[in-house]
Amino acid sequence: MRRLTDTAAGRFLSPAAREALGYPAPGGWMPPLPPGVVRLSAGYPFPDSVPVADLEAATRSLLAEEGDLPLHYLGSRSMAALPGLLAARMAGRGMPVQGEELLVTSGACQAIDLAARALLGPDDLVAVEAPTYMEALEILRNYTSHAVSYPVDRQGLDVEAMAADLARRRAHGLPLPRVLYTVASFQNPTGTALTAERRRRLLELAADYDFLVLEDDAYGELAFGSPPPTLKSLDRDGRVVYVGSLSKVVAPGLRVGWLAGPGWLMKAAALFKKDLDHPLGWAVTAQYLNAVDLDRRVATLRQRYAERRDWLLAALERHMPDRVSWSRPEGGFFVWVTLPEGYDSQELLAPALACGVAYVPGRHFFLPSEAKAGARHLRLSFSYLPQGDLERGVALLAGCLDSWG
Amino acid sequence: MRRLTDTAAGRFLSPAAREALGYPAPGGWMPPLPPGVVRLSAGYPFPDSVPVADLEAATRSLLAEEGDLPLHYLGSRSMAALPGLLAARMAGRGMPVQGEELLVTSGACQAIDLAARALLGPDDLVAVEAPTYMEALEILRNYTSHAVSYPVDRQGLDVEAMAADLARRRAHGLPLPRVLYTVASFQNPTGTALTAERRRRLLELAADYDFLVLEDDAYGELAFGSPPPTLKSLDRDGRVVYVGSLSKVVAPGLRVGWLAGPGWLMKAAALFKKDLDHPLGWAVTAQYLNAVDLDRRVATLRQRYAERRDWLLAALERHMPDRVSWSRPEGGFFVWVTLPEGYDSQELLAPALACGVAYVPGRHFFLPSEAKAGARHLRLSFSYLPQGDLERGVALLAGCLDSWG
Repeated sequence: MRRLTDTAAGRFLSPAAREALGYPAPGGWMPPLPPGVVRLSAGYPFPDSVPVADLEAATRSLLAEEGDLPLHYLGSRSMAALPGLLAARMAGRGMPVQGEELLVTSGACQAIDLAARALLGPDDLVAVEAPTYMEALEILRNYTSHAVSYPVDRQGLDVEAMAADLARRRAHGLPLPRVLYTVASFQNPTGTALTAERRRRLLELAADYDFLVLEDDAYGELAFGSPPPTLKSLDRDGRVVYVGSLSKVVAPGLRVGWLAGPGWLMKAAALFKKDLDHPLGWAVTAQYLNAVDLDRRVATLRQRYAERRDWLLAALERHMPDRVSWSRPEGGFFVWVTLPEGYDSQELLAPALACGVAYVPGRHFFLPSEAKAGARHLRLSFSYLPQGDLERGVALLAGCLDSWG
Repeated sequence: MRRLTDTAAGRFLSPAAREALGYPAPGGWMPPLPPGVVRLSAGYPFPDSVPVADLEAATRSLLAEEGDLPLHYLGSRSMAALPGLLAARMAGRGMPVQGEELLVTSGACQAIDLAARALLGPDDLVAVEAPTYMEALEILRNYTSHAVSYPVDRQGLDVEAMAADLARRRAHGLPLPRVLYTVASFQNPTGTALTAERRRRLLELAADYDFLVLEDDAYGELAFGSPPPTLKSLDRDGRVVYVGSLSKVVAPGLRVGWLAGPGWLMKAAALFKKDLDHPLGWAVTAQYLNAVDLDRRVATLRQRYAERRDWLLAALERHMPDRVSWSRPEGGFFVWVTLPEGYDSQELLAPALACGVAYVPGRHFFLPSEAKAGARHLRLSFSYLPQGDLERGVALLAGCLDSWG
């Protein structure tokens, strides 16, 4: 019998799979890192931020109280309590939602994926920020190849630039976006937060031009000053679909996120969620949330991340050549660096790795057709490394820039 | 501002979502059950089958050894070891696979979903067994509405009926299936296992008619006699895509399944897997698999389930009216019951619930267009209930049949 080869087998792939395989591989924005490289690229919570002992205690008390129930498909009270606990947390932040308006997911990415799948057909136009979260770009392109981007400045998404384009599109009978994906608070990668005025204006535009807003709030609670209101909390006509996550405020390894929006959308999104519910993970998470004071934990995390932001900014001040500039985020994990004219952060990556430091080149945060707009930018993360490594990494990067320039 | 209503909002749904919403809601095969009903419907492992103490010990030793690592995105050795442990288990069952040929998923359903998404476009024909796993039908219809079914008899899928239809299709230039979904061993819902001869013949057909076989082996290890070889272990030309699960042999609440097949397919399937990896759940599972003798556990489970099968069959013998017949499974969780001419298991469900017993009506295991073929059938599960409840449930059902007939 003839064995199917990779080449021969391609004919079995669905049109969707063939199209997806035509894009650069997900995660391709970071080559394998040589050992010992300082990972300013790593957008992870810092190691001892995750509550190991509390989660272990939660697991122990859960199994003592509920026995085998969290290990079955159904039946655990704690598991069943998780959606309500997440809804209560939203309500505490000015976003009351009903039971049928919240869908627990395996992290924010799955929430974005399910919303996109329920909302975007191949003929629909999706709007994104430029730059934006690269993994969201990888998700959205699985549903439509029609995308438009609007620039981000120091105040977040340039809402007036978006307004002008929408007016132009309407005047010329061009397609209008059906959904805007935005990380309005402490954006990945720039760290910027949308101003209050722009938030209101954005919601007016959504109503005026009849689009939905998919708000990725992964970093919204990690504000160093007073937290901006979420778009969802300002939404009066049901146009904001909210993506939440415990990855940054509890632990990414739990894989707990959620999607919150109108019931009609949750119902549709659930039809595509085939990983089913995760009884043990949800039950442990619920037990943990019931046992700890999460507000207090978040307050501590804010201080710890603000301190790290300060470390990174101080290192940049100390080491960076004159013509390099960067954002000064008031929350989140990231600083967005702008290199002098003529630099290309993608070309610079291999030399930087050779110098011993890793970052994420700016191009990966833009639509592929607009990747050049990222050439002079790079993303650094202050969330993960200890102070000494942040300092050392920036010094290495500065030295590398000097020798390259 | 005008609030978006459910009706108005429908225009935002993608074509895929609108189509999915047109089908009966997933899980709709079981109405809410009155309290106290004997759940012969429940296809779950029995309560004390799940290894609570061992999984708690695995969690404790994992966190003692690895600290915070399993709570981050990456970095846990145990988490990274899970795919290899699953591959080793496959190798031990005659299915050696390489690293790039296995993708860990959140249960078997996600594995089926990802394979279907990577293989089936809206114009493709998918083949299924009649009857078959209802949740697989719910998954497959998200990708194509073109489906053909082939009957299952006491020896499993009627491969010669399939061969005849394939020949007819070829002769008339009709579409041929691209994928056959099969639960070859201890099928849900009939409990039948495909004979060795039919397995070989099925693989010949796959090569001859150039289709892939998606083998759902959720119950394959739970054989009461000598376990049948998996289709994957017999496959010589790379046409079998294997779906594995720990839900039946360890615990469903862990949500660990996997997809194993050619690298080109795993690569495509991974592009649609946006729940990412589950570090804590995977790491606990790996730690558990390293600590226990799973073969020994499986041997015990086989005995326990065989005993339960015997209890259910004895109760059927004892209580059922003469003209009722049923399958005698050599593994798995289910018995398939055939009612006398003129009975309709869907119509009978409400009276049965009123009598205090639940089952799954046969129609839900057939393509919607062929649902009538299930009218005289119903699925009983012996996996979940204790002996007394199995006995009592069958007695109640028999009484209900008597008063209905």
